[in-house]
Amino acid sequence: MQYNRFFTDDQVKRIHEASLELLENVGVLVHNDKARAIYGKIGCSVDVQSGMVKFPSQVVEKARQSFVPTYTFTAQNPKFDKVLPNDGPIVVTGSSAPNIIDPKTGEERRATSDDIANIAYLINELPGFDVFSISTLAEDAPPGQFSISRFYPALKNCKKPVRSNTPNMKDLEQVLELGELIAGSKEAYMARPFINHHYCPMVAPLTMDVESTEAVIYLVERGLPVYGTIVPNAGLTSPMSLAATVTLGNAEFLALATLIQSIRPGAPMIYAVLSTVADMRTGNYAPGAIETGMLQMGHTEMANYYNIPSGGYIGLTNSHLNDAQSGYETGMNTTGALLAGASLFNMGGLLGSLMAFDFGKAVTDSEIAMNLKRMKRGMEFSEENLCLDLIAKVGPGGSYMSEKHTVKKMRTTAVLPNVATREMRGRWESEGRTDYQTRAMREADRILSQENPAKFSAELDAKIRGHFPNLVAGDAKWDL
Amino acid sequence: MQYNRFFTDDQVKRIHEASLELLENVGVLVHNDKARAIYGKIGCSVDVQSGMVKFPSQVVEKARQSFVPTYTFTAQNPKFDKVLPNDGPIVVTGSSAPNIIDPKTGEERRATSDDIANIAYLINELPGFDVFSISTLAEDAPPGQFSISRFYPALKNCKKPVRSNTPNMKDLEQVLELGELIAGSKEAYMARPFINHHYCPMVAPLTMDVESTEAVIYLVERGLPVYGTIVPNAGLTSPMSLAATVTLGNAEFLALATLIQSIRPGAPMIYAVLSTVADMRTGNYAPGAIETGMLQMGHTEMANYYNIPSGGYIGLTNSHLNDAQSGYETGMNTTGALLAGASLFNMGGLLGSLMAFDFGKAVTDSEIAMNLKRMKRGMEFSEENLCLDLIAKVGPGGSYMSEKHTVKKMRTTAVLPNVATREMRGRWESEGRTDYQTRAMREADRILSQENPAKFSAELDAKIRGHFPNLVAGDAKWDL
Repeated sequence: MQYNRFFTDDQVKRIHEASLELLENVGVLVHNDKARAIYGKIGCSVDVQSGMVKFPSQVVEKARQSFVPTYTFTAQNPKFDKVLPNDGPIVVTGSSAPNIIDPKTGEERRATSDDIANIAYLINELPGFDVFSISTLAEDAPPGQFSISRFYPALKNCKKPVRSNTPNMKDLEQVLELGELIAGSKEAYMARPFINHHYCPMVAPLTMDVESTEAVIYLVERGLPVYGTIVPNAGLTSPMSLAATVTLGNAEFLALATLIQSIRPGAPMIYAVLSTVADMRTGNYAPGAIETGMLQMGHTEMANYYNIPSGGYIGLTNSHLNDAQSGYETGMNTTGALLAGASLFNMGGLLGSLMAFDFGKAVTDSEIAMNLKRMKRGMEFSEENLCLDLIAKVGPGGSYMSEKHTVKKMRTTAVLPNVATREMRGRWESEGRTDYQTRAMREADRILSQENPAKFSAELDAKIRGHFPNLVAGDAKWDL
Repeated sequence: MQYNRFFTDDQVKRIHEASLELLENVGVLVHNDKARAIYGKIGCSVDVQSGMVKFPSQVVEKARQSFVPTYTFTAQNPKFDKVLPNDGPIVVTGSSAPNIIDPKTGEERRATSDDIANIAYLINELPGFDVFSISTLAEDAPPGQFSISRFYPALKNCKKPVRSNTPNMKDLEQVLELGELIAGSKEAYMARPFINHHYCPMVAPLTMDVESTEAVIYLVERGLPVYGTIVPNAGLTSPMSLAATVTLGNAEFLALATLIQSIRPGAPMIYAVLSTVADMRTGNYAPGAIETGMLQMGHTEMANYYNIPSGGYIGLTNSHLNDAQSGYETGMNTTGALLAGASLFNMGGLLGSLMAFDFGKAVTDSEIAMNLKRMKRGMEFSEENLCLDLIAKVGPGGSYMSEKHTVKKMRTTAVLPNVATREMRGRWESEGRTDYQTRAMREADRILSQENPAKFSAELDAKIRGHFPNLVAGDAKWDL
């Protein structure tokens, strides 16, 4: 597939150069001591008083030389390993929502570790998803177990790659201990590190925080998988211009990439973004807007220039229901990103601007993901697929319905969805006149009513629970 | 914008050549006598017994030489004229559904001329739409006035270009009489022919019908605007292969184009398609499937090779409700087609595989259309839009909220939708927890409750009603 492009080659180069100019002349405010020290060591000018770091172009260009073109998500079960960009689109859940739409009442409430267990199992089973980014927080986390109360139910119930973040170093260390327990040893875990870390160390405009930056440095030093997402919001933390927002975000990406490559040249990265335009009538956050998709597409062009995988939080919705709005917002922006060449889609399951997980939305996004994967396969051009002999045989006015070729190819040529209806109206009415969300919730119910095949062994579970006293139960329990 | 491509240049050429091979070796079954005579006259071999026409390559290649790169939709009000491809995306309603979802009851029923009047006025007012293709049939049409009962309310209430078809020559002549009455004279009408005709003379596979072909010939002979849509359905009337369906459809397009260009070299055309893949689990028609979008994209690559405008019925849905399914089906396929370079989008307002018009769906599609138009404008790269001075001025950690630049650019940089919600959940709840369709119906109600500015003068209306006794009322009347 030849990807869609908004920019010419010259415009891409100009954005790169403009990003270098911003890093050299305006600089980045770096709040983390270790990061400032690293930047100083590699030739940046560091103002100790203000924390301002300025980047000579050659420092950034040197870091660029060690960029690598792939990024691997490792899973507990190796059959679920995924490598960007070739396995793309890699479809991931949206993450860390505080709330969930209760599947029984339809009301929003705080999410718990039991919810995470159910979601993890659902994502393990839904064919459209490749990676489980832990969708919610856990309100019931015992003191001192904020993150482990999320990662334990996630890793227990989903054998696809699990991804999330931690708020501080103590939590990160606990999560890595859990990983080593599951792997059987530190060495086994380091050989296949199936916890995939994600942070937002860059705060637009041009600022680097303390805690997330600390976590990134720690993980990169140990060779563990981590990447960051760049999140400028035009109108508030970035200029009200798409081209400028791509440029500012690109400068921020390069600042973070320079840090990572200076610590460990060749460390895999993803050029991940959630660049947005604020709805300035109210200042509301608008991740479902078409401009989010366009910005992703623009950043992807920059990532392709740097030859690194790209993507991010794309396909989000502002809607609080899984309705026509959530459908077209997710559908339009993910399609745009796919056709620009993005390979990572953190899209699934969230409503209301990343505030709440919804089971029906997750099922929907799995079906949207199947469409994206079909589109990525493209037209499958070959002389055989032109079917010239078959067209001659069937002839003008003939029918292909009972041709062997039709039967043989019907399940691979087309996506055959489970939830989308294709029935004529009479049949659809006689089957209860359901809307898509009703059927999506039924599909979630069907999956979650089965016995969960993804659990830990009793032995391993006892070991983990012995290591972390008071740990949440972490079992998928569905009672709709 | 550099468009997305599934095919390489060589593959496009091969599909063109394979289409020529099909036309030369397999041929087209032509049921219309006049068409057969025209084909015979330009060098095709015509089998009088069977009606089979075979096309030497040079005949098709000669026709290709007179293809023109633009197509104009003329409107009653010249400010609404649109030229493909440069004014694209040209967004059009879906057409000729037998039914409507009653705005009061939500039940499906047969559509009437009053419905057409209301729809025409709505499309006149909705900013996303450029052309009104008459969305429904009119169940209440008096005997002998099947088509005029559709075109009269349409032309009375919508001053944007109006498009539709007629089932026979008598109806076509009536419709043209109506056009001349509105224009004031035959000459005035011919100077600005604001009725835009559309037919499907090609019936896949490789067959040409009687009545639609007759209408196309009649209109092309007179220099009136007309184009045809190609509609292969993989698994039933075309092979179960996307590449083969593009090839078969391309051959059918070339057969029709050869007829048109032979009658009047340089007649404007649109490479319009509704190529689909059947859901072979049931044989159901699946215009909402992702493969419909992909086929449109493939055909658009062929149209770009021929340098003619392209598009068609794209963004349709199988859903019977305006729900998440209708949202993502319309959103994904229209985005794909846009990024492949299509400029005509016959997408708006229909549910249930083109069977029923829905007012809320039309409002939704107007909002989706605004997103497509924004995406088409692209990143608006310029040195000024990189905002490097502004970024330096605001600096790391600053805010763009109160910058003059933000205020100046907030309404042009981003689409600011009326129906999509961007409110936080608390506000959305306090405003009634509406779903998108509820708000879309409110928007339709708001528009249709206004006085209709698009009517005919009393004098003209009396003239028309005198010419066509028993004509339907044709007035937009809204009473929700």
